[in-house]
Amino acid sequence: MARAKRAGRRSGNPDTRAEILAAARRLFAEEGFESVSMRRIAAEAGVDPSLIHHYFGSKDDLFLAAIELPMDPAPEVEGVLKGQDLEGAGGRLMHAFVAIWDGPHQDKLLAMVRSSLSKPAMAFVLRQLFEHRIVTTVERTLGDQVDHIPVRAGFIGSQVFGLVVTRYILKLEPLASLNAEELAETVGPTIDRYLTMPVDRLLEGR
Amino acid sequence: MARAKRAGRRSGNPDTRAEILAAARRLFAEEGFESVSMRRIAAEAGVDPSLIHHYFGSKDDLFLAAIELPMDPAPEVEGVLKGQDLEGAGGRLMHAFVAIWDGPHQDKLLAMVRSSLSKPAMAFVLRQLFEHRIVTTVERTLGDQVDHIPVRAGFIGSQVFGLVVTRYILKLEPLASLNAEELAETVGPTIDRYLTMPVDRLLEGR
Repeated sequence: MARAKRAGRRSGNPDTRAEILAAARRLFAEEGFESVSMRRIAAEAGVDPSLIHHYFGSKDDLFLAAIELPMDPAPEVEGVLKGQDLEGAGGRLMHAFVAIWDGPHQDKLLAMVRSSLSKPAMAFVLRQLFEHRIVTTVERTLGDQVDHIPVRAGFIGSQVFGLVVTRYILKLEPLASLNAEELAETVGPTIDRYLTMPVDRLLEGR
Repeated sequence: MARAKRAGRRSGNPDTRAEILAAARRLFAEEGFESVSMRRIAAEAGVDPSLIHHYFGSKDDLFLAAIELPMDPAPEVEGVLKGQDLEGAGGRLMHAFVAIWDGPHQDKLLAMVRSSLSKPAMAFVLRQLFEHRIVTTVERTLGDQVDHIPVRAGFIGSQVFGLVVTRYILKLEPLASLNAEELAETVGPTIDRYLTMPVDRLLEGR
């Protein structure tokens, strides 16, 4: 996102799409995802708001385009959860995790995580990705078997983001060199427990 | 560490201590902790190596002084583990975690984590802290009850670093507003399992 450059205000030219993306990146980074409206982005880019909807659809879609997501983790997650029993879901999610993170997009994914963790204003990138790609996918695939998925997803996220940090950033051994099956056996049960533990009490008064 | 400034070469003056620290910060950041010898640091600071030992003791101690650790987590961890049963250790570690992270040093700790995660060369700060303050403390206090502590500590670290990311950086709810007792009940059993699961097989051929 640091690459976003302030472009001159123009409208109706072939660069409109690029200008909308640049404006979105700039405003999201400076003010955060939640507080920036589509109307603000349109004004910043010097275009009519309807053009943003035309090019990108929803604000979520605009976000995904703006952060230049190197790869969408949702299909991988959906693939290991959809149409299967809840049992063993944690292990299967670890296989998806390794497929995503040990795949060809590791460098770009790591760059995104680093930038998102380093500056407070950039935390929204990871949070949005997590909530709008991962949590929604888990909800869609396990929603009829598991209650309170957003709450459970936070715990699962705490384990999975921690794996990213220890395995790919700090490179702690033997964690960094375990294969998918070994991670499924050791970390999978943690995720299974977060999918099944009682969480009602955590929601009282919140 | 970005504050480290290149000072002129002097020796035997009252700034010697500060010069050693500046040289250590600079070299650790540029080349990593492991590859920089005490002798290199002494040469960079323009002092005799014996002076470093005189002022700081070991290379680990020099490291702790150089990173200006806002607070040492080791005593808190030792306090909840020493002289107690293994049972419930995970929950007690969560209480220590909250005492450390919700305490007065949160901002400085977070700044350290952010800088350590954002640049590859800085990962050594967190890794050293983890290995030389946390793992050694767990080894000292639980070493007679638990085998392969460095391996288990990696898994525990993956959960705990992930909590730092999700609770204090991404601020996912309700995770961010759970109290120590709630974290002990939900995340404590994860740590207990990492302290007791079989890990021998993970070490085969490594």
